[in-house]
Amino acid sequence: MEKLQQRVKEDGVVIDGGILKVDSFLNHQIDPELMYEVGETIYNKYKDEGITKVLTIEASGIAPAIMTALKFKVPCLFAKKSVPSTLTEEVYHTDIHSYTKNKTSHVVVSKRFLSENDRVVIIDDFLANGEAALGLYNLVQQAGATCVGVGIVVEKSFQSGKQRLLDAGLDVTSLCEIAALDNGKVTLVGEGEL
Amino acid sequence: MEKLQQRVKEDGVVIDGGILKVDSFLNHQIDPELMYEVGETIYNKYKDEGITKVLTIEASGIAPAIMTALKFKVPCLFAKKSVPSTLTEEVYHTDIHSYTKNKTSHVVVSKRFLSENDRVVIIDDFLANGEAALGLYNLVQQAGATCVGVGIVVEKSFQSGKQRLLDAGLDVTSLCEIAALDNGKVTLVGEGEL
Repeated sequence: MEKLQQRVKEDGVVIDGGILKVDSFLNHQIDPELMYEVGETIYNKYKDEGITKVLTIEASGIAPAIMTALKFKVPCLFAKKSVPSTLTEEVYHTDIHSYTKNKTSHVVVSKRFLSENDRVVIIDDFLANGEAALGLYNLVQQAGATCVGVGIVVEKSFQSGKQRLLDAGLDVTSLCEIAALDNGKVTLVGEGEL
Repeated sequence: MEKLQQRVKEDGVVIDGGILKVDSFLNHQIDPELMYEVGETIYNKYKDEGITKVLTIEASGIAPAIMTALKFKVPCLFAKKSVPSTLTEEVYHTDIHSYTKNKTSHVVVSKRFLSENDRVVIIDDFLANGEAALGLYNLVQQAGATCVGVGIVVEKSFQSGKQRLLDAGLDVTSLCEIAALDNGKVTLVGEGEL
């Protein structure tokens, strides 16, 4: 997705430890038209697959996921990192570790909203080690549902996440693939090649 | 907003202590088309006001806020309940207490994304005691920005939040106003009157 790739190159900031800061358009301040185009692109990839639900995790996954769900005209379900007082029934749950935050979250979705009849697209803002996407896939499997594909806004292709998802048999659609974050510079996959 | 009001009546579940559970379409599973209509309605209310930014708080505010921002073609900024490692610069911050969760969150927005030139619409999923909306208004004031209005998906009109926002001089647009949650039943404002 060219507009997204340009935006990552222009507005992404590389900070210490190979962390990419994209908080001007993705995970603090959000560009809604860019997110709409993200949703459209994921929709075009999986539109003939009978998708019934879009699954993500709070909070930064919600914007791209709701736009994807809008295009599919299906519900968007977001996994919660804490169990709210209003969630009084049975849940599917798993643990997801964030290396960036150095924190493990116990995430849940209500059993009411995911069933064996569901055909799910998983959406997340980042793919690095694959922890979040694999955790969401675990929830899909617990429900006996089918994961048709995983849509990622920004993939750090130099980390292990993509391969781990492929090894799990998942179809992965990444809209911006980052080859390296060296010397304060974002290099995209394929960039600079002849 | 009639479709929203119907949905709250039909799918809202009243649980102990006057808590309304709307997690089938608003704050766990989300109906994207309903959220789009929420955004459209808020847009129609403030479209001539020169809005430059939509402000909300993670996580349940993001879906209605991003749809509102999509209509306005302006950025959506969400206040964070924890300070991420990528947020290395100065922030505006305040404390917001949730009575439902019985928890006080320290919320922040980066100073880069809110300035005295901004004309802001604040969006949240619920208005009860007004803590979240007033906390967001506090952030807007710290930035010297202007709060043009507050858009609320579901207002509990029997609690003090609406009056507190009006007392602060804010314009409030609530799309579904709930008069009572007694005996397990949702009663809307104006419902049953001649």
